[in-house]
Amino acid sequence: MNYNLPFIPERPAKPRVSGITMVMDKGLSITEAENLVNVSGEYIDLLKLGFGTSLVTPNIKEKIKLYQKAGLKPYLGGTLFEIFIIRGLFDEFIKFVDSLGLNLVEVSDGSMELDNDTKCEYISKLSKKFTVISEVGSKKADVHIPDDEWVAMMKNELQAGSWKVIAEARESGNVGIYKSDHSANTALIDDIIRNVKIDNVLWEAPIKSQQVWFIKQLGANVNLGNIAPSEVIPLETLRLGLRGDTFFTFLPENLKQK
Amino acid sequence: MNYNLPFIPERPAKPRVSGITMVMDKGLSITEAENLVNVSGEYIDLLKLGFGTSLVTPNIKEKIKLYQKAGLKPYLGGTLFEIFIIRGLFDEFIKFVDSLGLNLVEVSDGSMELDNDTKCEYISKLSKKFTVISEVGSKKADVHIPDDEWVAMMKNELQAGSWKVIAEARESGNVGIYKSDHSANTALIDDIIRNVKIDNVLWEAPIKSQQVWFIKQLGANVNLGNIAPSEVIPLETLRLGLRGDTFFTFLPENLKQK
Amino acid sequence: MNYNLPFIPERPAKPRVSGITMVMDKGLSITEAENLVNVSGEYIDLLKLGFGTSLVTPNIKEKIKLYQKAGLKPYLGGTLFEIFIIRGLFDEFIKFVDSLGLNLVEVSDGSMELDNDTKCEYISKLSKKFTVISEVGSKKADVHIPDDEWVAMMKNELQAGSWKVIAEARESGNVGIYKSDHSANTALIDDIIRNVKIDNVLWEAPIKSQQVWFIKQLGANVNLGNIAPSEVIPLETLRLGLRGDTFFTFLPENLKQK
Repeated sequence: MNYNLPFIPERPAKPRVSGITMVMDKGLSITEAENLVNVSGEYIDLLKLGFGTSLVTPNIKEKIKLYQKAGLKPYLGGTLFEIFIIRGLFDEFIKFVDSLGLNLVEVSDGSMELDNDTKCEYISKLSKKFTVISEVGSKKADVHIPDDEWVAMMKNELQAGSWKVIAEARESGNVGIYKSDHSANTALIDDIIRNVKIDNVLWEAPIKSQQVWFIKQLGANVNLGNIAPSEVIPLETLRLGLRGDTFFTFLPENLKQK
Repeated sequence: MNYNLPFIPERPAKPRVSGITMVMDKGLSITEAENLVNVSGEYIDLLKLGFGTSLVTPNIKEKIKLYQKAGLKPYLGGTLFEIFIIRGLFDEFIKFVDSLGLNLVEVSDGSMELDNDTKCEYISKLSKKFTVISEVGSKKADVHIPDDEWVAMMKNELQAGSWKVIAEARESGNVGIYKSDHSANTALIDDIIRNVKIDNVLWEAPIKSQQVWFIKQLGANVNLGNIAPSEVIPLETLRLGLRGDTFFTFLPENLKQK
Repeated sequence: MNYNLPFIPERPAKPRVSGITMVMDKGLSITEAENLVNVSGEYIDLLKLGFGTSLVTPNIKEKIKLYQKAGLKPYLGGTLFEIFIIRGLFDEFIKFVDSLGLNLVEVSDGSMELDNDTKCEYISKLSKKFTVISEVGSKKADVHIPDDEWVAMMKNELQAGSWKVIAEARESGNVGIYKSDHSANTALIDDIIRNVKIDNVLWEAPIKSQQVWFIKQLGANVNLGNIAPSEVIPLETLRLGLRGDTFFTFLPENLKQK
């Protein structure tokens, strides 16, 4: 902070286990990646190379090294895992991850169907060698997963070796833990909170109103993901009560108006 | 202009008192700030470091100097003023502004309530030392301020020492002078226009349709604010009749079709 | 591709006659233009300097050279053609294009009315000296052009010398070939497909759902335009089946689930 103010929530230093911010890179150039780490590198924990962008982005290894050197953990978006798996290329996936020098992998079943036991086997195998995060929820609006299944899958995947489980929302923020109008699916989220250790969950929250909702519900150090590069600094102000939306959230009662 | 065309409205040179464009910086890196001033510096008058971003942006003094050197007037968004005031830290606010080398300050009550007399005292005190702009209107959609109060507050604040008064719209453009569907609250805006000198008002207009509406109502040199960095050049084309939306606006009658 | 996967559609190399991506530059700085060509230059064929931005962007010649050197074909958005034409300055338009060193021009009547014969004369004259693309459709939501007229105009303009005809959608993607809710106007599009050689049509598709719709209808190598600079890499993944939305589109039947 450039000035010490009272009543600002404390944020843990890196490497963080809570208060994590995961950013989605949809194809930044090397210079744009440099801009990102220069201005907000200290606030970013995880850096997702979204869906299959890593296959078509030039200089991908150079970009990955740049992120790692700046203390970010880059990884391939789960859709790329599924792109290899649907083609029966699990070993090739591992080779590709290795060739890029990545230490973190994501396992998901948002685009294809994967029964949870098989998914957990992948998680288990990969967790011998990499840090694994796994994502629960479908990208398709018409796939309905009952709330108790969400909870059961999250527990299974953490047990199988996932470091964190991600609650799916897409880049557009209108499926999974959100309704089609982008508002929170509170019944599902409550169920997850009651049953899964909260530090182990990373909530995709691409839209400001969603970020505000989670910060008000679960505090400054909630784990949030699918943040656009240009929204990292704004998110950090939300976490610290430095924006209109969370202006009163962290103030003591006697300073709250009305 | 890279080519001299007839029927293009004249734009005053800097420092402008009308035709002002205020840009919101939500956390640009130094290089991104350089890009901004290189391509559109001559079209930007005021540069707002949005809400509390100046507290969490690294190299903030360097960025401020870069903007000032390029002829822009950077200042802290009004929410930061309120963040200090709600904590009872008015003197500390002045010290912080001084330490950053800023010459312009914003006074607002968009997040907290401040009776207008107290607000005008702050404006009066600050105007001894800085150029002051003050913002009227709440960020909250459920706070209704009657039109005659808007007008009275704007007049009071100009009297107290504000150089310009800003009509609040948020970054999202759906409160204050706009309805929840982003369209103009014409009754309120008409009341303001009839009662306040128009050059003294700066209209927040983050959305293109709002910019178009004001340019058609009040001309090429209306003061507009909360413009995104990437929208400065497009706004300039709207002001000059160089985009579809204002294609006919500045043409003589004999060139207008139908 | 950074890894060779099976069942990835083939993309033609530049200079392409199909599978074209047209990007809209609304006022990038030189450095931002460099970022763009560095990361996605090989995927971009046409680079539109949107509406009248080329008149107010500094260093426009330098930017044009940068794009040309990187193998992109920059040109002035059609609105600028109309801005000259409505003022009776056709010869001056040609001089301006020449002075910028451009080889491609766009002829359109999206903002002003131009009877199709006159438009075709402009196309014919310009095609003696430049490659011409022409745009069909009005930017105004309340102008209804019957489907058979769309088709007739496209045929006329190709005959008159247009290299490609563009189907208008605006930057906002809610007019012409789209309905006001951004969904495809399928009756019109079907009519065009049935009657015009598909490689000769470039569909404006600024919104992801529109890009997905065209790729599913017309394949990986459909010509798409009005793509935002930051969406070129994501669009390339859609074309290649490397994103959730087109995950199954190019897979053989035996790999498709359900």
